[in-house]
Amino acid sequence: MVVTAETIRKTTNDPLVIAGRAYSSRLLVGTGKYKDLEETRRAVEASGAQIITIAVRRTNIGQNPNEPSLTEVLPPSKYTYLPNTAGCYSAEDAIRTCRLARELLDGHDLVKLEVLGSEKTLYPDIPQTLAAAETLIQDGFKVMVYTNDDPIVARKFAEMGCVAVMPLAAPIGSGLGIRNPYNIRFIVEEATVPILVDAGVGTASDAAIAMELGCDGVLMNTAIAGAQNPVLMAQAMKKAIEAGREAFLAGRMPRKQYGSPSSPLGGTFF
Amino acid sequence: MVVTAETIRKTTNDPLVIAGRAYSSRLLVGTGKYKDLEETRRAVEASGAQIITIAVRRTNIGQNPNEPSLTEVLPPSKYTYLPNTAGCYSAEDAIRTCRLARELLDGHDLVKLEVLGSEKTLYPDIPQTLAAAETLIQDGFKVMVYTNDDPIVARKFAEMGCVAVMPLAAPIGSGLGIRNPYNIRFIVEEATVPILVDAGVGTASDAAIAMELGCDGVLMNTAIAGAQNPVLMAQAMKKAIEAGREAFLAGRMPRKQYGSPSSPLGGTFF
Amino acid sequence: MVVTAETIRKTTNDPLVIAGRAYSSRLLVGTGKYKDLEETRRAVEASGAQIITIAVRRTNIGQNPNEPSLTEVLPPSKYTYLPNTAGCYSAEDAIRTCRLARELLDGHDLVKLEVLGSEKTLYPDIPQTLAAAETLIQDGFKVMVYTNDDPIVARKFAEMGCVAVMPLAAPIGSGLGIRNPYNIRFIVEEATVPILVDAGVGTASDAAIAMELGCDGVLMNTAIAGAQNPVLMAQAMKKAIEAGREAFLAGRMPRKQYGSPSSPLGGTFF
Amino acid sequence: MVVTAETIRKTTNDPLVIAGRAYSSRLLVGTGKYKDLEETRRAVEASGAQIITIAVRRTNIGQNPNEPSLTEVLPPSKYTYLPNTAGCYSAEDAIRTCRLARELLDGHDLVKLEVLGSEKTLYPDIPQTLAAAETLIQDGFKVMVYTNDDPIVARKFAEMGCVAVMPLAAPIGSGLGIRNPYNIRFIVEEATVPILVDAGVGTASDAAIAMELGCDGVLMNTAIAGAQNPVLMAQAMKKAIEAGREAFLAGRMPRKQYGSPSSPLGGTFF
Repeated sequence: MVVTAETIRKTTNDPLVIAGRAYSSRLLVGTGKYKDLEETRRAVEASGAQIITIAVRRTNIGQNPNEPSLTEVLPPSKYTYLPNTAGCYSAEDAIRTCRLARELLDGHDLVKLEVLGSEKTLYPDIPQTLAAAETLIQDGFKVMVYTNDDPIVARKFAEMGCVAVMPLAAPIGSGLGIRNPYNIRFIVEEATVPILVDAGVGTASDAAIAMELGCDGVLMNTAIAGAQNPVLMAQAMKKAIEAGREAFLAGRMPRKQYGSPSSPLGGTFF
Repeated sequence: MVVTAETIRKTTNDPLVIAGRAYSSRLLVGTGKYKDLEETRRAVEASGAQIITIAVRRTNIGQNPNEPSLTEVLPPSKYTYLPNTAGCYSAEDAIRTCRLARELLDGHDLVKLEVLGSEKTLYPDIPQTLAAAETLIQDGFKVMVYTNDDPIVARKFAEMGCVAVMPLAAPIGSGLGIRNPYNIRFIVEEATVPILVDAGVGTASDAAIAMELGCDGVLMNTAIAGAQNPVLMAQAMKKAIEAGREAFLAGRMPRKQYGSPSSPLGGTFF
Repeated sequence: MVVTAETIRKTTNDPLVIAGRAYSSRLLVGTGKYKDLEETRRAVEASGAQIITIAVRRTNIGQNPNEPSLTEVLPPSKYTYLPNTAGCYSAEDAIRTCRLARELLDGHDLVKLEVLGSEKTLYPDIPQTLAAAETLIQDGFKVMVYTNDDPIVARKFAEMGCVAVMPLAAPIGSGLGIRNPYNIRFIVEEATVPILVDAGVGTASDAAIAMELGCDGVLMNTAIAGAQNPVLMAQAMKKAIEAGREAFLAGRMPRKQYGSPSSPLGGTFF
Repeated sequence: MVVTAETIRKTTNDPLVIAGRAYSSRLLVGTGKYKDLEETRRAVEASGAQIITIAVRRTNIGQNPNEPSLTEVLPPSKYTYLPNTAGCYSAEDAIRTCRLARELLDGHDLVKLEVLGSEKTLYPDIPQTLAAAETLIQDGFKVMVYTNDDPIVARKFAEMGCVAVMPLAAPIGSGLGIRNPYNIRFIVEEATVPILVDAGVGTASDAAIAMELGCDGVLMNTAIAGAQNPVLMAQAMKKAIEAGREAFLAGRMPRKQYGSPSSPLGGTFF
């Protein structure tokens, strides 16, 4: 195969576009669970992420003026903030949290909506999430939505006007990888907005698999923060996301049930 | 976790050492199945490989002086050549092929031994491979050996003096990925020489998984040459190998059966 | 372990109870896709099923008095009929279909509700299904509900008053087996009503796995009707369901990463 | 599909033939690891097994006349004894053990050969097993051989004259199920003697999967003896083996990536 102009364009200029803004990195990272803000900063930098998600109910981004703020080590001028509603178990709570974030961040309207349905599995509550998304969109927010891996639900969020749909790979913080690649594939095939895997990635290959399935990006936190060496894992994830994206664009070899020689022997020397 | 001097050393200087020689790349590539020598060259370069394997019975490295030789586009001065015995179905054939390679390559003694047992699965014939390895080692060759994923057999090859043991992930050219990660893990745990996965990798995540299991490297050919865009896939594989290695060194998060919040809510703001 | 009275009770009297009625068989079967009514009858008999599901929009159970009726070969006196809403893509359609079934079957109120969201994946439309379930329950129906494998959604259906929750294993008619055993396990762990896997089973082992995960039963159609020999497959499924149930009750051995001798050699003869 | 005479023959008379003798049961069981001989007897009976394997170095079948003998509870008149060489780590030991068994059992020549290569994985030592098999066959034994899942090795054992080839599913006693179904499939496809999965089965579905892959039988011990209720698990295994066999003969439905309605709606009533 000749490397065409199209291919070159694809690999040298293949941005992730969310809510009209282009990002060269397809890895989005969380900021929780690190030892301290310094480790957070170093891991985020190693990840190459340009969008960072922040648990508004947990992370100080100005709510408490007397404590160190994330905004000092990871300034909003440099990173796109993605306030999230982690810990919200109702549409009402999630909506209130988004509004608080907008206030704290001077009118910032890009948010990650998650409404949880169980403390055990941390699975989303889809009816509550649908309700919250509807209100938030009407209220002018640009909603990236955390959801289960149901393709019908994913389509509903896209039709409703969410700017990105983010199905889980596995329960939040489980590190189990993509439990149901078929569903992620179904979601990607019908996607009209960017699809990002959110939650469940455990190691580099999990991230690569998400990208090979055609996802537009991956959001993770524990996989990096929970590694023995978070900064090195962040760097691994950066490469894994790029590797998976490039493998997707390159078009993998077909799978074969039997062997197929690398060096066919028609016309061998001896 | 503090990034220690040890960690820095590990990531900035973590060479693959084979037969006493250090390589910064852990990706070894084949040279067959490309459209032409130019594509071969470009894919190999994009892969960052420093060791390239050559099917002596198939590839012109001087046997036929009237045709273009691989040595012109990928000079042995720049790459470590790894002549292989692809297409050999007996110890005798494999030994003869290695000797021919040594002659053609002025005494070069590093070889990849494979003795196949079936045209359908391209699985190795272990008794024949053991016999050939023994003779070749006595004959002064440094043998990297293609084998099945049996940990006992792998140990035998290492004890015998092979300089690297290369279990298959899946049948040659199948692209099925690592069919039995348990076995690869067993082999790695008991390894006394470098373990490289050889055969069966289909896409970037497969390569990352091999490295996350603790393998020292991966050898592949069809996964790159058989992609729709081989050069882009070669670049993806380079990153995947690095990502997998770094994820292995970084120490992945533990898997958990249930969810675990990225942003625990003890002491939330509201 | 001594086989206790409890164990004996469990295996000789371990009924599936749905809507207050006990069934000795845990296999529910569909009646579609067979060659003719005679094959339907023979397969259903071989399966040992006591509950049979009927696509009201498709199967003649009296709508057309001039054609052979399923009621003649599989009489409602012998089988519990489970009319289903296959082919309905809205709550409204599904409700209407259930009411028609009740009329045709003289007040029969046990139904299987499915509201589909896509012709491609045949995934359920959860918001529509929730709405339909609510109306049907208020209307006096006993609702067994086809759903995705989201544990939060499953809990909602149980809380609402559905008499059984039936998560999919994989898309209807795909035969892919249980794509996400974790989710089925989560659903079973929190179940307050019977959980039956519905859709996606392809062969006998798939059915056994569902039961080993703790499900109360399995509903299938294509896995039997689409086999080359449906009657023999029905018999296989009967045994697989029983095998899986008994294995679940028997308590499987723990998995171990390494080998463990069947015949430990402390105190051997020689 | 019409159920032909052929099909009826297949299911009502589908014996496993080993060394010229026909068995209606395809489940072979070990006799180790039970609480006492009484539990051994009851589990073996529940399993329906007709061939029972006995670790000659461990189990009293007459070596010690002062202790209870297995022959009393499971008489050789009723069961085909399959003495095995569990615990042997060299060809020499294994051969000696087989000869002892023949002596103890009055010329009985059917044996299960296993020569282990590692106490950790309990993987077989293939070169030692090949050597032992050769000697034993020359010595008049009918050898059923425990091997890894390498299709080339399996073929060698069959060509050599072994009466059955028994690849592992996973390490002995691990209960991990069939780690590499591709290899088992390859072995079955080329089989000229019965193929029985030996070792690694953990629960009923694992046994069913082995049979669905086309294996002729399964040998297990820990999966039954290590269950919380061994007798109930033995009964589950009996059904699982039959279910898997029948599913194999019935010819499963094809797998489809997308959904396919059980009740197609062309010509629906409304």
